[in-house]
Amino acid sequence: MRDTIPADPDHFEVNEINRVRRVHDRGRYDKATIHAFLDAAVACHIAYTIDGRPYCTPTAFWREGDHLYWHGSSASRAIRNQNKGLPVCLTVTHVDALVMARSGFHHSINYRCVMAFGTAHAITDRAEKLRLLDNFVDRIYPGRSKLIRHPNEQEFKATTLMGMEMETVSGKIRDKHVADEEEDYEAVPAWSALYPITQVIGEPSDCARQLPGLTRPDEMADFVPGTRLDELMTKTYRKTFGE
Amino acid sequence: MRDTIPADPDHFEVNEINRVRRVHDRGRYDKATIHAFLDAAVACHIAYTIDGRPYCTPTAFWREGDHLYWHGSSASRAIRNQNKGLPVCLTVTHVDALVMARSGFHHSINYRCVMAFGTAHAITDRAEKLRLLDNFVDRIYPGRSKLIRHPNEQEFKATTLMGMEMETVSGKIRDKHVADEEEDYEAVPAWSALYPITQVIGEPSDCARQLPGLTRPDEMADFVPGTRLDELMTKTYRKTFGE
Repeated sequence: MRDTIPADPDHFEVNEINRVRRVHDRGRYDKATIHAFLDAAVACHIAYTIDGRPYCTPTAFWREGDHLYWHGSSASRAIRNQNKGLPVCLTVTHVDALVMARSGFHHSINYRCVMAFGTAHAITDRAEKLRLLDNFVDRIYPGRSKLIRHPNEQEFKATTLMGMEMETVSGKIRDKHVADEEEDYEAVPAWSALYPITQVIGEPSDCARQLPGLTRPDEMADFVPGTRLDELMTKTYRKTFGE
Repeated sequence: MRDTIPADPDHFEVNEINRVRRVHDRGRYDKATIHAFLDAAVACHIAYTIDGRPYCTPTAFWREGDHLYWHGSSASRAIRNQNKGLPVCLTVTHVDALVMARSGFHHSINYRCVMAFGTAHAITDRAEKLRLLDNFVDRIYPGRSKLIRHPNEQEFKATTLMGMEMETVSGKIRDKHVADEEEDYEAVPAWSALYPITQVIGEPSDCARQLPGLTRPDEMADFVPGTRLDELMTKTYRKTFGE
């Protein structure tokens, strides 16, 4: 897919696959922005094709460098097919606001999203897979892999860890307020506003079989009820992988 | 795709496309559940294939009966290709909780999701398209189509409205607390808990060019800052389309 080494290591190359065509000023190709959108998320949607039919599956994922990782049951249809080396599109979306306008045409949603194209493959090296499975837990809950029981042989085999290099990527963002046709501001007496939307974590609910004396580990100090999930996931990501 | 009329009109038929294989007790096929998951959402991800390459695009959508609708720029690559009658998978996901366990294997996310398979087509009938575009606005903001300027000819042509019959559908849900291997509850001294995740609307921010005297319409009384988006969208949906 990539014929040449990109001239700028801080940007993804723009090509016919990833070029943002509609409202192209919303397009983003710089790695700093794309990494920020990805690392603020815990879940994505992955598109893949089996027997000519497209599927769109939600799953948890994370990024390391220019690679994205996710996992699944070794027996699942999706994973068995991706395992063969399947082209996929992994998309991450943050919904940031509902935007009401004075015409239907200008109603909108503020969002940040990334579409990453690559070829999925299974991670088969044992040590690498174990290391990545630990990172998968720590990326959400810093330091947690050291506290929990490690995978037994059955669990290890039952889990397929998938990865892909981000071969072609685009980010897209709308972060504007109401934007109407000039004549509509005066002519249309409709109350128009923007409602921010955030995803937040609530109060933790302890496992009913918690051993006595256990409390939230210090490394999870950022898990404060009411915290935005995107901001929390950015913090936990950096705690685990650095800036 | 459907060879026979389903025996039960309240359920989607289960076949090789939509059968939930992994953790199959999480599968849902009854229309009441699937409609509830869909109507609580404002956005979805749509998978489609162009030249053998899968794409996964986030977009706003809504349901009427067994049909799903979304829109896009008539000039966009995604819409131009779907327009031809393209198989798509439209997926809606609600992330409900992060679930920490005593092994990596049992860490999980609570979620509700729907995967709907069908063939996308453009709505070309003028009256039908106008009616649906109004519903698209009202589905989020009840009664708003009566307050705003209607599409002019240029906007009408620039917008392609897409629809599909849900030919094959599955829902899937995880709504459990921590579920560990029996021996791990005692053996692993790791604090384990569930963090609920909700998407909420915040305080509205008025358009800077609001005409004097305008306030939130009575039909939007459910837009109370702090309200969960899924509960709000369920209410606005029912206000517009009935129960």
